[in-house]
Amino acid sequence: MHVPVSADQGHDPVITILHSADRPKHLDGPNVRFVTDETLTAALPGTEILLVWDFMSTAVRDAFPAADSLRWVHTASAGVDRLTFPALLDSDVVLTNSRGVFDTPIAEYVTGLVIAMAKDLAGTLDAQAKGEWRHRESERVGGRTAVVVGSGPIGRATAAMLAAVGMRVELVGRRAGEGVHPIDELPGLLPRAEWLVLAAPLTDTTRGMLNATTLGLLPPRARVINVGRGALVVQDDLVAALRDGTVAGAALDVFEKEPLPADSPLWGLPGVIVSPHMSGDILGWRDELETLFVDNLTRYRAGEPLANVVDKTLGFVTGSAR
Amino acid sequence: MHVPVSADQGHDPVITILHSADRPKHLDGPNVRFVTDETLTAALPGTEILLVWDFMSTAVRDAFPAADSLRWVHTASAGVDRLTFPALLDSDVVLTNSRGVFDTPIAEYVTGLVIAMAKDLAGTLDAQAKGEWRHRESERVGGRTAVVVGSGPIGRATAAMLAAVGMRVELVGRRAGEGVHPIDELPGLLPRAEWLVLAAPLTDTTRGMLNATTLGLLPPRARVINVGRGALVVQDDLVAALRDGTVAGAALDVFEKEPLPADSPLWGLPGVIVSPHMSGDILGWRDELETLFVDNLTRYRAGEPLANVVDKTLGFVTGSAR
Repeated sequence: MHVPVSADQGHDPVITILHSADRPKHLDGPNVRFVTDETLTAALPGTEILLVWDFMSTAVRDAFPAADSLRWVHTASAGVDRLTFPALLDSDVVLTNSRGVFDTPIAEYVTGLVIAMAKDLAGTLDAQAKGEWRHRESERVGGRTAVVVGSGPIGRATAAMLAAVGMRVELVGRRAGEGVHPIDELPGLLPRAEWLVLAAPLTDTTRGMLNATTLGLLPPRARVINVGRGALVVQDDLVAALRDGTVAGAALDVFEKEPLPADSPLWGLPGVIVSPHMSGDILGWRDELETLFVDNLTRYRAGEPLANVVDKTLGFVTGSAR
Repeated sequence: MHVPVSADQGHDPVITILHSADRPKHLDGPNVRFVTDETLTAALPGTEILLVWDFMSTAVRDAFPAADSLRWVHTASAGVDRLTFPALLDSDVVLTNSRGVFDTPIAEYVTGLVIAMAKDLAGTLDAQAKGEWRHRESERVGGRTAVVVGSGPIGRATAAMLAAVGMRVELVGRRAGEGVHPIDELPGLLPRAEWLVLAAPLTDTTRGMLNATTLGLLPPRARVINVGRGALVVQDDLVAALRDGTVAGAALDVFEKEPLPADSPLWGLPGVIVSPHMSGDILGWRDELETLFVDNLTRYRAGEPLANVVDKTLGFVTGSAR
């Protein structure tokens, strides 16, 4: 697939692609600029469309004042928290995300983590490494209660899959909806959350939502899984809860700072699984992300409404926004 | 719960319980004999009911000639392969198993293994142990094909759960049935088996069913999961297939010899997960097994048909046998 990015019509927008080691394979054209964190500011003047391919980058905020022609920013991620800074929010620039690419992979990942932790797969692998036949009894998954926070496509897909393997699932979103508890009911649900899954966007409302207070509401032996954003959790509070046994375990795919610093106690805490922000990244995901952008670009150039437009007040794509 | 095992009616059958370190907690009475492998033969004369609580024991075969009053043998396992020796098969002794206790736990276990292997959880834990942030892309589970061999309750529960997480599942049994391929169709299914799950009883038909020939029919990068019996697989052939890359990985919970001998190459082969025959053993399983026996004992003493009667010709409980 080769996608020449140039207009047949008179207008040929300049597209700047912010990348790091990896870059899109099929996007090319005279008006396409490939840049990194260091060269972003110089490339922004004249740029009409910014593709944030390196969605871990925080460079857009600093470079933003140099944007004099920017109309559309697209990010190759579901979360947009690195892009919801005041200058962009206050501007007319349209922000779109990659909603839809990560749903099922993350649902699978979370389901696998729940079962692996219930069956103590880590203990099995540890015994195997030592050549030890160490029979243990393990936990059921069926009938246990999971509270899933985040009622977007990722949270919904995750809740559905956990229910499919027999769990009782309570889904929590910003607002009440069919099958969705509003976020203010969360404190009442936490005492039943044998498994707490965070799959919410990072917004002013959700930042630090799992802290000493809310951790204290969990039942004994609860486990926490975070596939949303690291800052949903007050990391020091979680570490304390793991150390004092308030929480039995955690599987964390996202962190306040990524990569997780080498001196973080999370690396070595018993009952904790640290994974490198990979829950949604299945083989072929970059092609899917690229296709999603190209589809939206086609709409842009045809003057059609864009898909996956982020509500900049809320910080995520609402409802069934296409 | 205390279950006094003595008859209110005139007849008070002698019950012998073959156990090892663990023994039933609630069974007791004047006519109950607790024995181990070493004392089984001495206890068999006069025994009417034998509860094989230590289902890993192979002592029954050797002690069997001492059984002069035996009418019923119950095993605290789903598989009965250690009890289907000629002298018992040719006798009038009724054999029952613990069908039903292990279904959902094993289905969960297999589903967890599939997702954990697809997402390379072992690689994540290995990186974590080294403090390394090692992002990788992983595999989808949805849409992949799993062939599940074994159409009893364990195989069916497993197939249903794998389908529930989005896999295409082909279920293979002894005979064709609704949604079940007969075993002679297996060679035609293997080339599509990205995941091959063995959950069949060990019989003359199934012994060694996965061997160099059948392994050779699997597609590249296939993975094998065995939660049935070790001897379903020609272990040396599997080791060879893993070494030469014919098979990408295996998760084995059962082995030709258990515990798996320390010098087995399986312990250290890349892509292999060795677990200690624990897939069905959830917390509380021993209570469930005990309840199941006590329920059957109640039927026995009331002169009612027993539940879970093994067809001694086939080597397992057939159809919807209660």
